[in-house]
Amino acid sequence: MAEPATATQAAAPVVALLKDELDIVIPTIRNLDFLEMWRPFFQPYHLIIVQDGDPSKTIKVPEGFDYELYNRNDINRILGPKASCISFKDSACRCFGYMVSKKKYIFTIDDDCFVAKDPSGKAINALEQHIKNLLSSSTPFFFNTLYDPFREGADFVRGYPFSLREGVPTAASHGLWLNIPDYDAPTQLVKPLERNTRYVDAVLTIPKGTLFPMCGMNLAFNRELIGPAMYFGLMGDGQPIGRYDDMWAGWCTKVICDHLGLGVKTGLPYIFHSKASNPFVNLRKEYKGIYWQEEIIPFFQQAVLPKDCTTVQKCYIELAKQVKEKLSKVDPYFDKLADAMVTWIEAWDELNPTGPVPNGKAA
Amino acid sequence: MAEPATATQAAAPVVALLKDELDIVIPTIRNLDFLEMWRPFFQPYHLIIVQDGDPSKTIKVPEGFDYELYNRNDINRILGPKASCISFKDSACRCFGYMVSKKKYIFTIDDDCFVAKDPSGKAINALEQHIKNLLSSSTPFFFNTLYDPFREGADFVRGYPFSLREGVPTAASHGLWLNIPDYDAPTQLVKPLERNTRYVDAVLTIPKGTLFPMCGMNLAFNRELIGPAMYFGLMGDGQPIGRYDDMWAGWCTKVICDHLGLGVKTGLPYIFHSKASNPFVNLRKEYKGIYWQEEIIPFFQQAVLPKDCTTVQKCYIELAKQVKEKLSKVDPYFDKLADAMVTWIEAWDELNPTGPVPNGKAA
Repeated sequence: MAEPATATQAAAPVVALLKDELDIVIPTIRNLDFLEMWRPFFQPYHLIIVQDGDPSKTIKVPEGFDYELYNRNDINRILGPKASCISFKDSACRCFGYMVSKKKYIFTIDDDCFVAKDPSGKAINALEQHIKNLLSSSTPFFFNTLYDPFREGADFVRGYPFSLREGVPTAASHGLWLNIPDYDAPTQLVKPLERNTRYVDAVLTIPKGTLFPMCGMNLAFNRELIGPAMYFGLMGDGQPIGRYDDMWAGWCTKVICDHLGLGVKTGLPYIFHSKASNPFVNLRKEYKGIYWQEEIIPFFQQAVLPKDCTTVQKCYIELAKQVKEKLSKVDPYFDKLADAMVTWIEAWDELNPTGPVPNGKAA
Repeated sequence: MAEPATATQAAAPVVALLKDELDIVIPTIRNLDFLEMWRPFFQPYHLIIVQDGDPSKTIKVPEGFDYELYNRNDINRILGPKASCISFKDSACRCFGYMVSKKKYIFTIDDDCFVAKDPSGKAINALEQHIKNLLSSSTPFFFNTLYDPFREGADFVRGYPFSLREGVPTAASHGLWLNIPDYDAPTQLVKPLERNTRYVDAVLTIPKGTLFPMCGMNLAFNRELIGPAMYFGLMGDGQPIGRYDDMWAGWCTKVICDHLGLGVKTGLPYIFHSKASNPFVNLRKEYKGIYWQEEIIPFFQQAVLPKDCTTVQKCYIELAKQVKEKLSKVDPYFDKLADAMVTWIEAWDELNPTGPVPNGKAA
C-alpha cells in the first residue's frame, strides 16, 4: 500500500453503476492528468470541473472524458451577485459544482488522489464502493459491532433492536485515504513522515448526535437528500481562514441529517493521497480555525432545529440564523458566513427551481 | 481465517502485560481443555473459574494454570441470601467472578472461544490487545475517522478539536469474533451458514450517547472504573429470559460511562468462536428479550443520571430505581431485576469493602 495502483492494475473492466445519475465534481488549478489513472472507473461518468484561480488559464482534460468546466468568469456570469458565496482561490469552490449538477448523486475527489490498492493488491474502485454505501441504508440510532450490517457476510448482531433494522436513507459516504493522512498543520509538523498504511475493511454509520471531521477529498452524497447542506463556506481569497471548508460542510450536514433522520457513513473506500500539502502554508490558513473550532463544535453539538424544519433548505436557513446569533461573537467572519449561507440557498433554489423531493421524516 | 490458530502458531513467546493486575474470568460447565490453546497467553495470569450447573461435577483444568474455582455451593456460602442475585444455569454467573476478584482489570472469555489468526496467519494475543485498548484513552465526544488515534501509525485527523485530544479513561474493551458471529436466534435460523471472515483492523470508541450490543464472549474492563456496573442480571434457571445477560450489562455500563466521562472501545481483538449454539434453544431463551428490548433500549437511551451520582455504585442504584419505575410495567420480571441490581451492589460492597477509587469526573 506504499504506492498507488498502476494504470494496468486499475484497468480491469468495470460496471458503471448509476452512470446517468451521478456527476463527479473536481476542483482544480492544473491539468487533470490524474484522470488517466482513474479512466477505467470514471470515463463512463460525467465530470463537472470547477477551475479555481486565474480563469484565463487553460486546464487540459485527458481525451475521452465527458465534462463541463466552469471557471470564475462562468461562476460570476451564472450566479451574478450571488457568486459572492462561492470561494475563490480555495478548493471550497467545488460546491459550485454541486449546485449546477442536475444529477441525484455527487462524487467529489481532489486532483492529487490516485487509485489505491486493497491488501490483495487489487485496484480499488472507490466510486463503486461509495455507490454501494449510498444505496444501502444507514443505522444511526444504535451501534452495530460488526459494522455495516448491509455488507455481504455481515448482519445485525444479537441485541440489535429489530425495529431499527430497516435503517434510514444514507445521505453521505465519507471515504478515507491511504498514504498521506488528512492531518492538520500542527500534526503534519510534528509527524512529517507518518503515512497511513492501515487498510481498515469497514464501513460504519456515524451515530446520531455524534459529529465528525468530514474531509472533502473523497466524498460522495445524495444530492436530492442533502445537497443544499453541502456548502463549503467562505475560504481562501479575502477570507481569514482556509482548510475548514469541508469541516464546515460536515458539521452542518451531520446536524441536518440527524434532524431529518438521514445517515452518514464513513470508512471504505480508500483513495491513495499522493502529496502532503505544505504544513507552513496550512498553518497560516488553519490557525484561526484551530481555536475557533473549540467554540464552533460545541455550538453544533448543541444546535437544535425546530420541528417545522422539514426540508434541507429550511434546516440550513435556520442554522444560518443560529450561526449569526451565536458565533458572530467569536469573530465578525461568522456574521459574513451566515449571510453567505443564506445566499447559497437562494442560489441553489434559483438553479434548482423544482426543488428536491421531500426528505426523510423529521426526527 | 476459516480455522483457529494451532497451538504451535500460538506458542511464540509473549510478554505478559499487567500480569499481577488482571484476572481472567471463565464461566463453564465443562472441562477447560480449551485453555491448552491459550496457554502461551493465559498461563502467566490468574484465572477465576465460575462453575455453572451441578456443583458436584468436577471441572478439569489443564496442568500449570493458576486458578480459583467457585461452584454454586461456594457462591451460596460466600454471599448467603445475597447469592440470589447471581444467575444459575446461565453464563451470567460469570459476574460473580468480577465481584470476588481483587485485581484492577478483568478479561472474560467463553470456553468455546479459541485463538484467532490475523490476515497474515499470526495467532492473535487477544488479551494483549485488550490491555492496549484499556491502557490508552478513549475519545467519546467526537468521532475520529482514522479510528483509534492512539494506535501506532494513527492520530487525530484535521478538524479534531485539540481540547478533546487528551481523551478520557477507557473503562471497557469489547472484542469481536471470527467464524461464528454473535447473532440472535432469528438471524441464526435465517442464515445458518454465515461465518464472519472479515478481519477489520480497527479499534474505535463508541461515541457518547450511543448504545451498543455488548457481547460477553470476549470482553475486558477496568474493574476499578466500572466493575460494579458489570452485573449480568437474572438469567437462566427460574427466569423468563436468557442470552440478555451481557446486553443488560452493556446498556447499564454505557449509560454510566457516558455519565461519568469514561470510554468504551470496540473492535480488535478477535477470538475464533468455534461453535454456534442451538438456534431453537436460543429462540426459547431470547423471545421475550426480542420484544422487551424494543422498550428497554429507548429506556436506556433516555435515562439521565443526576449530577450527585459520582460513583459507579450510586449510578447503578439510581438506574435500578429507574428500572423499577419505568420497566416494571413491561413485565414484573423487571421489578425483580431492579431488586437484584440493588442486591448486587450490596454484595459487591461487602466483598470490596474499601470501595473503588473515585472515577472520572461527572459529565
